[in-house]
Amino acid sequence: MKDKKYVYLFNEGNASMRDLLGGKGANLAEMINIGIPVPEGFTITTEACIKYYGENKTISEDIIEEIYSALGKIEKKTGREFGNKENPLLVSVRSGAKISMPGMMDTILNLGLNDETVKGLGRLAGNERFAYDSYGRFIQMFSTVVMGIEKKKFEDVLDNAENAELTVSDLKEIIVKFKKIYNDETGSNFPQNPERQLLQAIAAVFMSWYNPRAVIYRKSNGISDKWGTAVNVQSMVFGNMGETSGTGVAFTRNPATGEKSVFGEYLINAQGEDVVAGIGIPQPIINLKEDLPECYSQFMNIAHKLENHYRDMQDVEFTIERGKLYFLQTRSGRRTAQAALRIAVDMVEENLIGKEEAVLKVEPRQLDTLLHLNFDRDELKRADAIAKGLPASQGAACGRIYFTSEDAKKHHDHGEKVILVKTETLPEDIEGISASEGILTTKGGMTSRAAVTARAMGICCVTSCNNLIIDEKAGNFKVKDRLYRKGDYISLDGSTGNVYGKFMQTVLPEVSGYFSIFMGWTDDIKKMAVRANADTPGDVKKAVEFGAEGIGLCRTERMFFNEDRISYIREMIVFSTEEQKRRALYKLLPKQKEDFIKIYEAAGERSVTIRLLDSSLYEFLPADESSIKNLSDKMGVNFQKLKNTVRSFHEFNPMMGQRGCRLAISYPEIAEIQTKAIMEAAIDVKREKGYNIVPEIMVPLVGGVRELKYVKNIVVKTADEVIKASGIELGYKVGTMIEVPRAALTADKIAAEAEFFSFGTDDLTQMTFGFSRDDLSKSLSSYCDKKIYEFDPFQKIDRAGVGKLIDMAVKLGRETKADIGLGICGEQGRDPSSIEFFHDIGFDYISCLPVKIPVARLAAAQAQIKDPR
Amino acid sequence: MKDKKYVYLFNEGNASMRDLLGGKGANLAEMINIGIPVPEGFTITTEACIKYYGENKTISEDIIEEIYSALGKIEKKTGREFGNKENPLLVSVRSGAKISMPGMMDTILNLGLNDETVKGLGRLAGNERFAYDSYGRFIQMFSTVVMGIEKKKFEDVLDNAENAELTVSDLKEIIVKFKKIYNDETGSNFPQNPERQLLQAIAAVFMSWYNPRAVIYRKSNGISDKWGTAVNVQSMVFGNMGETSGTGVAFTRNPATGEKSVFGEYLINAQGEDVVAGIGIPQPIINLKEDLPECYSQFMNIAHKLENHYRDMQDVEFTIERGKLYFLQTRSGRRTAQAALRIAVDMVEENLIGKEEAVLKVEPRQLDTLLHLNFDRDELKRADAIAKGLPASQGAACGRIYFTSEDAKKHHDHGEKVILVKTETLPEDIEGISASEGILTTKGGMTSRAAVTARAMGICCVTSCNNLIIDEKAGNFKVKDRLYRKGDYISLDGSTGNVYGKFMQTVLPEVSGYFSIFMGWTDDIKKMAVRANADTPGDVKKAVEFGAEGIGLCRTERMFFNEDRISYIREMIVFSTEEQKRRALYKLLPKQKEDFIKIYEAAGERSVTIRLLDSSLYEFLPADESSIKNLSDKMGVNFQKLKNTVRSFHEFNPMMGQRGCRLAISYPEIAEIQTKAIMEAAIDVKREKGYNIVPEIMVPLVGGVRELKYVKNIVVKTADEVIKASGIELGYKVGTMIEVPRAALTADKIAAEAEFFSFGTDDLTQMTFGFSRDDLSKSLSSYCDKKIYEFDPFQKIDRAGVGKLIDMAVKLGRETKADIGLGICGEQGRDPSSIEFFHDIGFDYISCLPVKIPVARLAAAQAQIKDPR
Repeated sequence: MKDKKYVYLFNEGNASMRDLLGGKGANLAEMINIGIPVPEGFTITTEACIKYYGENKTISEDIIEEIYSALGKIEKKTGREFGNKENPLLVSVRSGAKISMPGMMDTILNLGLNDETVKGLGRLAGNERFAYDSYGRFIQMFSTVVMGIEKKKFEDVLDNAENAELTVSDLKEIIVKFKKIYNDETGSNFPQNPERQLLQAIAAVFMSWYNPRAVIYRKSNGISDKWGTAVNVQSMVFGNMGETSGTGVAFTRNPATGEKSVFGEYLINAQGEDVVAGIGIPQPIINLKEDLPECYSQFMNIAHKLENHYRDMQDVEFTIERGKLYFLQTRSGRRTAQAALRIAVDMVEENLIGKEEAVLKVEPRQLDTLLHLNFDRDELKRADAIAKGLPASQGAACGRIYFTSEDAKKHHDHGEKVILVKTETLPEDIEGISASEGILTTKGGMTSRAAVTARAMGICCVTSCNNLIIDEKAGNFKVKDRLYRKGDYISLDGSTGNVYGKFMQTVLPEVSGYFSIFMGWTDDIKKMAVRANADTPGDVKKAVEFGAEGIGLCRTERMFFNEDRISYIREMIVFSTEEQKRRALYKLLPKQKEDFIKIYEAAGERSVTIRLLDSSLYEFLPADESSIKNLSDKMGVNFQKLKNTVRSFHEFNPMMGQRGCRLAISYPEIAEIQTKAIMEAAIDVKREKGYNIVPEIMVPLVGGVRELKYVKNIVVKTADEVIKASGIELGYKVGTMIEVPRAALTADKIAAEAEFFSFGTDDLTQMTFGFSRDDLSKSLSSYCDKKIYEFDPFQKIDRAGVGKLIDMAVKLGRETKADIGLGICGEQGRDPSSIEFFHDIGFDYISCLPVKIPVARLAAAQAQIKDPR
Repeated sequence: MKDKKYVYLFNEGNASMRDLLGGKGANLAEMINIGIPVPEGFTITTEACIKYYGENKTISEDIIEEIYSALGKIEKKTGREFGNKENPLLVSVRSGAKISMPGMMDTILNLGLNDETVKGLGRLAGNERFAYDSYGRFIQMFSTVVMGIEKKKFEDVLDNAENAELTVSDLKEIIVKFKKIYNDETGSNFPQNPERQLLQAIAAVFMSWYNPRAVIYRKSNGISDKWGTAVNVQSMVFGNMGETSGTGVAFTRNPATGEKSVFGEYLINAQGEDVVAGIGIPQPIINLKEDLPECYSQFMNIAHKLENHYRDMQDVEFTIERGKLYFLQTRSGRRTAQAALRIAVDMVEENLIGKEEAVLKVEPRQLDTLLHLNFDRDELKRADAIAKGLPASQGAACGRIYFTSEDAKKHHDHGEKVILVKTETLPEDIEGISASEGILTTKGGMTSRAAVTARAMGICCVTSCNNLIIDEKAGNFKVKDRLYRKGDYISLDGSTGNVYGKFMQTVLPEVSGYFSIFMGWTDDIKKMAVRANADTPGDVKKAVEFGAEGIGLCRTERMFFNEDRISYIREMIVFSTEEQKRRALYKLLPKQKEDFIKIYEAAGERSVTIRLLDSSLYEFLPADESSIKNLSDKMGVNFQKLKNTVRSFHEFNPMMGQRGCRLAISYPEIAEIQTKAIMEAAIDVKREKGYNIVPEIMVPLVGGVRELKYVKNIVVKTADEVIKASGIELGYKVGTMIEVPRAALTADKIAAEAEFFSFGTDDLTQMTFGFSRDDLSKSLSSYCDKKIYEFDPFQKIDRAGVGKLIDMAVKLGRETKADIGLGICGEQGRDPSSIEFFHDIGFDYISCLPVKIPVARLAAAQAQIKDPR
């Protein structure tokens, strides 16, 4: 007796069996269970795939037996028979892993056809042409997918044929040629035995689990190689059986806008592949109401039913065979950020889902692009489009054009903004697409591969832009007699489909009503505060608009760099006595104070964490001889002496040089003047506006408690003097950055002097890896090519190393001070996966760029839902 | 009833009571216990000092009572009375902390004198002049030490007096003037009440515990501020009571050479301070045999007794009062490294101490200087001395002369080698002395302050060089009509007392018989191996001579920099294909192999750890335009292109740039060729010499296991090919540096691929502190001034931060691989305190510069004795 079942009829499974049946198989089973018309079939489990690899790539006898037995049942249900000359059963064979990997796995249709059954099919369909067409397609698909024969060989045969409607005898001739190719390439005849066809096809699906594209996709999506794929064998239905047949794909809501209306396309008398591949001009789904009204209404009902059942917008594939509607697949549909938001909000209002479920439905990263890209309105008004395509994925993009993914990636890696221009994209273009600001294709519709991929990635995309003539080899495209060459700028508007032949500025969009409702829910849910890194009043305003609950990092370097101020800081550097230095700095005081006043006013009562100066003094000094000469004239100091002074500030490794608290320790007067400006400004604003401001003063680059203590003493002394002199009560906090590994290692000591820790994960990552970010590029390409890094640790927190250090610092800090404030202000504060880590570790807040605030709020809310504090 | 005793008569204490009575007090008690003639007295405990500070700097009533009671007992024992006009008891008041802090605390002599008792003393001594001289000294000492009046004021009075022998009436006049100064400065009369004098003096000793010099000394010697000092009150005996009186200091063995013969000096008719301060010309102790033969023989017996009792060479102070010998103090004597070695070895041979005790008797740091300094013999033969002084502290020194400690320190901090030239050194010269290569004084003998301090610090010192005329103000000295100005070079020979008026090369001395006997014991004791950092066959030879058990770090950078090789590495960098690169590198193969052959031959069967290339490629490229032009001509490549290539290798933070394993990952051919050279050389040497060589190949700058694994794969593949091709069996190991914080944090993962960890504590310290060593100088001075760093973490391991990381890495590494090899090859491998840490943490070996090997061996042995594994 067998101990394991490897083959399940669709009606034996259900949605919860994803691991075993794969996503597609479980969904087909589920659909059948809820009464959706699905062609009969069965699923060979993922365990069978694992067994296949475990047994030296052989399908074991017992599994073959199960397959045949399932096949027998399908024959009974459909009343057709596999290999029967009169009434042949044809099947499709599709992969289906636990998680959908679109375009990554291979599909074979019309399996079961051979020289005999093709005739039966012709008779059954009353359409000999259709049967031979199907047979041709099958031979081609089987040859390329199962046997790995080059597709081009078959396409050449088709290209040589007349482009007009092929007759049956044309098709028969083509089939002869196809079979010859097969024979030439494999050394044997095209298999006539349907069972053999089936087993070979199943093995091919198993094999495709390890095809390079699939491996890369899994790697970049964190999917384990060990899962394996299931295989779905399903009886064929035909959308190419004439004018009452058709095939289509649809979303139950609009995947671009989120609007609640079914959105899709179909082609009459066509097979499914035609739609996805962008062959033929598809019709919008509404036209079906006229073409096949009964099918239309049935379709609409089922779409509604599926959405209710899955509690999410569905992406469905359907086929109509002679007026009978079949659903071939359903899955959660990919959507733009805008659509995701609207769908989430609408579904809550429709009482279909709750708020938490809604919040989990939107990918944080999607918001990111939603908030980034739009053209400047005025510029847009003045601009004339050179072409117009389909608005396949929203957003705006501007970049230099390249015609291959390799070029796009290469130039992107060199820091260019690029736009990938292709006739249509192929699955292997994934890397090129992700490197691009936007995608422009001349073929394909709204559901073409390019469109789907771009939407999933939140990349602007315009498809079907068919008045462009691309010469990929020459590296240019022509439109209206104008030539655009590789490297030229164009701009794409993903909301209108417009293409502009020039550089155009992209700007931030305003936020919509759906957005603010949705973000309100994230704020209700999340426990971790989201602050902004903002250095100017303008940034602070923007941050507040985006929902920042405070300013987690206000850098003060910029305040010194302004043209009207740098001369004072230069005086401070060049002068030698502390008294002179202090006098020079005091000239800066009113200006700095003004900056802080505006920042406090913009922040209202939100907390503001201000970091003391953290910059190498060398950066303030002129570098070339003539600028030094100018400065020496201006300051009335000896040129040579000044030059020596400048040189003395040069550092071999400025990243690890005299910055941060090291500056304040060498030049305490800097910390003094900064504190004075911070406190006086706070007092002024409190006096004028009544805001209860509690400045948080942050000491950077601390490596041990004594550094902090030294600077803190200056800060406290100065602050207390200012408060006393003002006669106004004002609280303030002094904390530190944790960005030097040693600070993390000795956080217990440091906590004794710090009211809060703000983790500077950028520098912490640099120092923990011993990797200068400025110099990273040369090594990083080798590191990625050679799979040494799975991700860029400056984008996503390195949990194994940097994360361990943070965890240690948090624990040590709390040992000393249980309620110590904990936050993060590095780049990773915008990254959803890192935000989850910061949530789990118990941070009070994260701080990121204003434009990333919504992403962070959403990620924080999701982290809370997944692992409630 | 009182619960605590704060005052102990000398005979109530013993040597074990150091904490309570201080070192001096405990020793005095111990001496009395073993029957040494010591003037009677008592000790006020360190607890009394703590109480004094705890009670707002007041000596409490109960302690005063105890003092008076002890005083009464002393009066009885000596038959003299405090304040008695006829038969006055005079006392000295001295500080005495748990650990001797020479010159740091203040002493008052002759206390008890006043306008009346001075007359009684005169009558008792039969010498009025002596009495008034003593009274004058007392007033001066009390005024300056207790009341803080400027010494110069008193010296001016003395300078104005005739320089000839002062008469009694001169002295009386001086006393009147001294008292006037006292009155002018304090507003009251000089205290006539001896009890009041005593209490004020005791309070002054307590106060001196916190004088700045004492605080700095404690800080730099790791002595806690909390210990407090005891006060010793001892009845005075007088060395200045005529020709049968005298005073002296002596060592029970020669502190410069270690020779077993009492070594000391005395002055007839003088007080103790005169000897130490270098006033008068002292006589060698042997002369006492003639002057006072009975005293001499008694002295020799007691010296022997003390040495046997304390099982160490003693440094004693003695006074002869009218033919009666008293010992005032004994303590372990400071000695040169050479003396320390000889004494340790001799004492074992005398069966006075065991080998472990002997090993603990030598300060590892002392060996360091012993091994550093000597002049080149040939140069020395040719050189003419410009002057000759006393050889006060061994060694050779060459440097620029400076005349103040400030100057010496300043120029030392700027990287100069300096020699401090002074009439005599003062206690406050400590910083200047420690900054100097050598000390030259015109006054003072072998036991002068300068001599003692220099020997303690292992710094070369020549004293009593009285034909030099120093003009400190003008910044020069004159000798034989030649003027040497500030900044000029001179050279000192501490073994002969010769002074040379020019730059002379210092070289390593050869090791003596005592040295090798002693080092043999360290090797018997220690468990941790000592290896050397050596990159050349010459270094390896030297390392082996110094007792290295292997080569812990053989850097390969230098092999590439040689004039005849750099062109190949440049080709490798400039060429673009891997094939070209490999071809260029292959030209280096025979040269590299030759290097390794010589290194293996020099190392014999000792293990050799070779580090793969760890250098920024930029360092191999020419930097200025003309060199680039030359290279472009030579290589036949376009100048501009080459210039761009060079520029592309420039890094902002080279320390954190593309070096170490990052190079091998970008240019695997480098690791390949290096491995080939390493393995082929090992096979050749094994074949030729039969040495069983097991090369240890070390991958630098690893931050995560994947980096190591990538490079290891190249190494293993190449090595195995070489072995296979040779037909000779050869083992080899692949390990990694742990020098990036992330490597330490993920050491469990890394250990899976590494056979050994070698901690690169230099880089680990840089990265953990986020401090570039190259740029440290600017911040470091502020950091030291402001007491933010207690020590330089690049010299001594930072246990709190870097040490914690190392500890973590060791534990994680062993979790994965219990027997993983553990070593260290950073600068701190030479530092005894760090070596103790590495021993405690369980390292298999430390590796340091060849010249530091003996220090490391000794430190490792001491660590083993203190905390046996």
